[in-house]
Amino acid sequence: MTEYFKNINKIKFEGKDSTNPLAFRHYDEDKMILGKSMKEHLRFAACYWHNFCWPGSDVFGAGTFERPWLSSGDAMEMAKIKADHAFDFFSKLSIPYYCFHDVDVAPEGNSIKEYVNNFQTMVDVLEQKQEETGLKLLWGTANAFSNPRYMSGAGTNPDPKVFAYAATQIFNAMGATQRLGGENYVLWGGREGYETLLNTDLRQEREQLGRLMQMVVEHKHKIGFKGTILIEPKPQEPTKHQYDYDTATVYGFLKQFGLENEIKVNIEANHATLAGHSFHHEIATATSLGIFGSVDANRGDAQLGWDTDQFPNSVEENTLVMYEILKAGGFTTGGFNFDARLRRPSIDAEDLFHGHIGGMDTMALSLERAAAMIENDVLAKNIAQRYAEWNQDLGKQILNGELNLEQLANFAVSNNLSPVKESGRQEYLENIINGFIYK
Amino acid sequence: MTEYFKNINKIKFEGKDSTNPLAFRHYDEDKMILGKSMKEHLRFAACYWHNFCWPGSDVFGAGTFERPWLSSGDAMEMAKIKADHAFDFFSKLSIPYYCFHDVDVAPEGNSIKEYVNNFQTMVDVLEQKQEETGLKLLWGTANAFSNPRYMSGAGTNPDPKVFAYAATQIFNAMGATQRLGGENYVLWGGREGYETLLNTDLRQEREQLGRLMQMVVEHKHKIGFKGTILIEPKPQEPTKHQYDYDTATVYGFLKQFGLENEIKVNIEANHATLAGHSFHHEIATATSLGIFGSVDANRGDAQLGWDTDQFPNSVEENTLVMYEILKAGGFTTGGFNFDARLRRPSIDAEDLFHGHIGGMDTMALSLERAAAMIENDVLAKNIAQRYAEWNQDLGKQILNGELNLEQLANFAVSNNLSPVKESGRQEYLENIINGFIYK
Amino acid sequence: MTEYFKNINKIKFEGKDSTNPLAFRHYDEDKMILGKSMKEHLRFAACYWHNFCWPGSDVFGAGTFERPWLSSGDAMEMAKIKADHAFDFFSKLSIPYYCFHDVDVAPEGNSIKEYVNNFQTMVDVLEQKQEETGLKLLWGTANAFSNPRYMSGAGTNPDPKVFAYAATQIFNAMGATQRLGGENYVLWGGREGYETLLNTDLRQEREQLGRLMQMVVEHKHKIGFKGTILIEPKPQEPTKHQYDYDTATVYGFLKQFGLENEIKVNIEANHATLAGHSFHHEIATATSLGIFGSVDANRGDAQLGWDTDQFPNSVEENTLVMYEILKAGGFTTGGFNFDARLRRPSIDAEDLFHGHIGGMDTMALSLERAAAMIENDVLAKNIAQRYAEWNQDLGKQILNGELNLEQLANFAVSNNLSPVKESGRQEYLENIINGFIYK
Amino acid sequence: MTEYFKNINKIKFEGKDSTNPLAFRHYDEDKMILGKSMKEHLRFAACYWHNFCWPGSDVFGAGTFERPWLSSGDAMEMAKIKADHAFDFFSKLSIPYYCFHDVDVAPEGNSIKEYVNNFQTMVDVLEQKQEETGLKLLWGTANAFSNPRYMSGAGTNPDPKVFAYAATQIFNAMGATQRLGGENYVLWGGREGYETLLNTDLRQEREQLGRLMQMVVEHKHKIGFKGTILIEPKPQEPTKHQYDYDTATVYGFLKQFGLENEIKVNIEANHATLAGHSFHHEIATATSLGIFGSVDANRGDAQLGWDTDQFPNSVEENTLVMYEILKAGGFTTGGFNFDARLRRPSIDAEDLFHGHIGGMDTMALSLERAAAMIENDVLAKNIAQRYAEWNQDLGKQILNGELNLEQLANFAVSNNLSPVKESGRQEYLENIINGFIYK
Repeated sequence: MTEYFKNINKIKFEGKDSTNPLAFRHYDEDKMILGKSMKEHLRFAACYWHNFCWPGSDVFGAGTFERPWLSSGDAMEMAKIKADHAFDFFSKLSIPYYCFHDVDVAPEGNSIKEYVNNFQTMVDVLEQKQEETGLKLLWGTANAFSNPRYMSGAGTNPDPKVFAYAATQIFNAMGATQRLGGENYVLWGGREGYETLLNTDLRQEREQLGRLMQMVVEHKHKIGFKGTILIEPKPQEPTKHQYDYDTATVYGFLKQFGLENEIKVNIEANHATLAGHSFHHEIATATSLGIFGSVDANRGDAQLGWDTDQFPNSVEENTLVMYEILKAGGFTTGGFNFDARLRRPSIDAEDLFHGHIGGMDTMALSLERAAAMIENDVLAKNIAQRYAEWNQDLGKQILNGELNLEQLANFAVSNNLSPVKESGRQEYLENIINGFIYK
Repeated sequence: MTEYFKNINKIKFEGKDSTNPLAFRHYDEDKMILGKSMKEHLRFAACYWHNFCWPGSDVFGAGTFERPWLSSGDAMEMAKIKADHAFDFFSKLSIPYYCFHDVDVAPEGNSIKEYVNNFQTMVDVLEQKQEETGLKLLWGTANAFSNPRYMSGAGTNPDPKVFAYAATQIFNAMGATQRLGGENYVLWGGREGYETLLNTDLRQEREQLGRLMQMVVEHKHKIGFKGTILIEPKPQEPTKHQYDYDTATVYGFLKQFGLENEIKVNIEANHATLAGHSFHHEIATATSLGIFGSVDANRGDAQLGWDTDQFPNSVEENTLVMYEILKAGGFTTGGFNFDARLRRPSIDAEDLFHGHIGGMDTMALSLERAAAMIENDVLAKNIAQRYAEWNQDLGKQILNGELNLEQLANFAVSNNLSPVKESGRQEYLENIINGFIYK
Repeated sequence: MTEYFKNINKIKFEGKDSTNPLAFRHYDEDKMILGKSMKEHLRFAACYWHNFCWPGSDVFGAGTFERPWLSSGDAMEMAKIKADHAFDFFSKLSIPYYCFHDVDVAPEGNSIKEYVNNFQTMVDVLEQKQEETGLKLLWGTANAFSNPRYMSGAGTNPDPKVFAYAATQIFNAMGATQRLGGENYVLWGGREGYETLLNTDLRQEREQLGRLMQMVVEHKHKIGFKGTILIEPKPQEPTKHQYDYDTATVYGFLKQFGLENEIKVNIEANHATLAGHSFHHEIATATSLGIFGSVDANRGDAQLGWDTDQFPNSVEENTLVMYEILKAGGFTTGGFNFDARLRRPSIDAEDLFHGHIGGMDTMALSLERAAAMIENDVLAKNIAQRYAEWNQDLGKQILNGELNLEQLANFAVSNNLSPVKESGRQEYLENIINGFIYK
Repeated sequence: MTEYFKNINKIKFEGKDSTNPLAFRHYDEDKMILGKSMKEHLRFAACYWHNFCWPGSDVFGAGTFERPWLSSGDAMEMAKIKADHAFDFFSKLSIPYYCFHDVDVAPEGNSIKEYVNNFQTMVDVLEQKQEETGLKLLWGTANAFSNPRYMSGAGTNPDPKVFAYAATQIFNAMGATQRLGGENYVLWGGREGYETLLNTDLRQEREQLGRLMQMVVEHKHKIGFKGTILIEPKPQEPTKHQYDYDTATVYGFLKQFGLENEIKVNIEANHATLAGHSFHHEIATATSLGIFGSVDANRGDAQLGWDTDQFPNSVEENTLVMYEILKAGGFTTGGFNFDARLRRPSIDAEDLFHGHIGGMDTMALSLERAAAMIENDVLAKNIAQRYAEWNQDLGKQILNGELNLEQLANFAVSNNLSPVKESGRQEYLENIINGFIYK
């Protein structure tokens, strides 16, 4: 147990009437919902980077967080102190999973060899910590965007040596993920994009990225990694335009390189909104395309054009998201990773807990509301009825290719078709949803 | 010659020092640029809908344009009067092409049969007008979004009878396009999208749209239409989310339905910006994916979130667009169609000319500037040099699949790779571009 | 009772477990909250324009609503039929107030004289309808933006005759509002803005608008109108830039023309978001500046850049709005007017009810949640504590002007000030709020 | 002369046909335009912070710039080395002015006393550098946003001790500005805004900020500073909502605190676009309200929602801005400060020059184009004619208050007014502008 978190006890479920800010009001991990426990449904993870690496800095100011593990000191020693605090925090938070980038947990060192050695050492530490605490790894990843060498991309860099450096990190991070029992491996295209078209060869960079993804998939099979490979869409930031813009864009990319059955998406709420989509849209798009994988649970700010990575707090929004996920069968290897960070003025140790508790309660309550929607599935019934004619003669003939354009036009004219309009009933359905949320 | 435009003579090129607002200052149709005339490069088209169908109304107010062809009267008679004015206008504008929707040129009538008959009659009229004036058809299309029957989509409608109605219009519009020598056939997914996910089956609607596109392609081959089939991306408006969101999204759709070699994109500048992209981005994306087809030339307003469809007036923006198009080999069947409309207070006959003259001069000057960039292709040289290492050993081995992830990582570590950063030189390149534009 | 709404009975409160979609689940008009009935707190109004004038058209398509009162026929006769339906609807909705524009209720006619006469006749009709039904008028206004004469503004038109025409409408609408017992008079600057700076004299147009507002205030006092004059901020649409951009902008305008104690703001949720603000922000800004008046209750779509005017359905958002309003003392003459419209495919008579019922329930539940927040006002206590030092020596001396810049600097240096950071506790407070909403 | 810039000679004007990337093609400082030299018109300044303090870091990655003055070392010693490089750079750039924040030039130290001492020492250094080089100070300012103590605001902080700390910095920075002959003093409300309304007292914070601005103005008069006090509007970033949102908002604030004749605005292009306005709009708004002061010349990215601070490169945009400024009489104490920074991958010493050269050439060419517009002022003539009736009887009577609302309405009705619509001619005017830009 660390000194820093010593005043905080393990967070427990106390029920919705609890006034204890350091307790769950809705997340009751063993509560059964539609045949599975909340814990199994939600598969929550906390992240290393926002909680233990980011010092509370922004573009306009220095770090505000005074954390013992961010003090100066021997790099490897500090990495271990950081791990002590991270696992103490994760444990007290009663969260089953965590996620990390390679360089979150180990110092980069001054050379690629030092990087490899430092990382291996720290993976040993993590392995031991997992054993001690029972924490599990939801996913690992490699940070191929923060180091200046990646300023013009990693896989899409004009210099193949930078590609090779990134490949080295990915190789090591995949190995670590497998060793630590990670259930997924994530690729977020940090700087896989362009700053300006004036110096960019779009076709070339796409080929490079396609090859990199293929190498990752081939390696997965080679080493027998059983988890899922995930790409995380984001439209912009840090680069002006990121290639993995949104789910639909990633789908086209996967199709081009024959990877649509090998790679799924890790959807981040805030990235969805930066791309001009609702979070719900991105989830529904992914499930309808068969590439839904996992979620980076956070929220953006509807008035701001950058990644604010706030903790989710809207049950209204997340009930619909959860409904979509449940309808698609729920998570398999994925889960809800809180890729969320405190506001810069939230400087206290307690704030780290408040953020996660709020997020976990929000998602837990959303799960309950969505489960109720499924048990009395008005939406599904309405949709079935709305599209019913597509299961009858004309609809089937069209979809089965039994009618060509001319035949269909002839049919329409000879029957003097005059379709009757039917209400979309949007307001009615919105009221139905609120009836489930505010019951 | 019509009474309405009687005070306006055919617009001619008078050179950049002309002060005649009803003359071209840059568009000199026979001027040779990189081996082709301006006219052949630019392939300008004016549109029927904004110029001859829209009365100057918006959501907050009634039409402001007092046009003789928009008066009340017998529908077919008015359609002919409209055609008289349209072809008088197109001719005086010295524009080689025009574009239309089926219901721009003919009244819908009160039944599908009336629609067919009215349209056939008006296609006869158009054919005669083309012959008289020498005007050509850049593309035709069907309006399957304005009539209330399409309020919930055409191809994506929950009712297959509505799909059949739309198919009838497309069948007729494709036939008309072929008969009138049209060089392309366009599909803009007017209401192919959703208003709310609550009543929408995304997977079902995608299947419907995919089948419709296949039917169109099959029909093209059946009738021997030699033109190009084009889809026009747009992210939203009128529906909340349109399925043909942007070029990258359309690409994924085409790949799914095996249509990526059959259908190209018709990119509209204003749709690009609504999707959160620069116009330049959409063009470059399309050329890099091999699906660039044609352009709806207009501009949006960077501060407004709807389709303002203004006439292009930025040489700075369009020089880069034109450079991209020239680098990709220029238009084949496509062209620049002015899908642009006057501001609602621009009510005079002259204003119709001012809008197009400004747009044509903007694109003509952009062509000249882009041609100069190609003749001294600093951008291309810079790009070749920037990515040069991808043509050498390591780069080739990576792209050719000769190295797997582990081998590449081993190579990087054993060589202790430490790539040297190179400046992206964005500001230098921006200055180079301005040197071409402001010479 | 009208034929059109004959199958719908007066909407009643049935409680949150009701499954009747044509009943209130939360709006129990006589329920007492913090000493006033829900009805008195919320002061709901329905509007004439979206419900009875708009045919379900948009820029891309014709009207979808088949309403008897929108059929063709003698204009005055149709206006009366419309009034019959409007008051039948309002009554069945159990809503206490309504709102209208002059030309919503009466035909414009073919001249200014016809306008005056038509309007007077219809005001007689409205007066009688109010008497029969007990409906009251929350506010009246004049539509000085739809007619083509206003294409370049009303008060800000370059032609003073257009200003005079608008003044005539305002004069008549103010008179009607007074006669009908209206509690407010609203000015929405429909086209008071610019399309392009190239033809606009900003200073001149501001002077014109300032004078118009002064004339309105002078007239109010002259006729002894006891209601409140309200300006409704909107940033854009229909013009590119509207002068009453947001609450802060209106405040500066009022200050310049000495009107800050005479005119308040009517804040619309969707206009707030178009201006880049949260609805909460606009309400809080208005209350903090002392110019909060009334609310146009609706919602926008976070992904769309135009006024979607949807019915409010977020209790999460409106609980904070309601809290702010209650803290400011609640409405005086203002209220919640549903400036909201159905989605275009929601074509049934029932849909008009679903929209309003959902909106009323949303605001009623938000009121309950906000009242609970006030009864245990954690936010207020936290704020009082956070700023407590401003009520002690140093704080008071600064605000009272007892220290000049040099003295304060000397104080800081001589005391070697080193302020201690305190957490802003945002996540904690967000959890507190959710504790009230999801109790 | 510094080692770092030793390979770069003083930048000179070589004319538009020069292919030397390290020469001006348009900025010919002594060229006379409308009776003043380019240098006097443009009053260019380079900034200390982006060029000499920012290391090329962003939220997602570490600094990429390897500058000798950013190495580790004794803080005061490094500050002097930084000053050496800064003045070497400014001199070679042939720029007449520079700008700085207090902590750009001097280390903050570990206490307020150290801060004061360090800053005084460095002001001595700057004074000597100015003397040696002839550089002048356009404006000074205090950075009251980067240090963690300002995480919840400076003047608007809940803790008056933080206010006092900020006041100390402002006091010192104003003194330094006066001593160094600075022509303006700027206040940018770095974190004067809110992160969440949940913990914010808007009215209280506004009072604090109002008092701070009054103290600054009082101090200006007390010390006899002859320059202009400027507030720089920005809508968001770093805080969610900044109080100095845009020019119109600042105007309302100044009016409330009686400061509208004491403080003007320093308009930044990128801040305009973040606020949802065009740069042109903000300039025109400020001149029309009589509060135009100075300009932070840069550009944003139309697709990105954060402050990209790129160098201006659009002659099309800046010609209109320059026209507006010239029409308002040009700068008095203000100027064009390049608050612009390199893209993160632009790591070379030359890139610093390319950015500024491009910006200076852009503004110089824009000045030439705008001057031509003024010499043949079609816009002004068109506007005079468009509003001409406001100088005739009816217009004058309205604006002079000779007609009240009722009298005006009576006039309109008795004359049966029916105003004739006149075209706004936007497209015509846009073509005219392009005729000046592309002559």
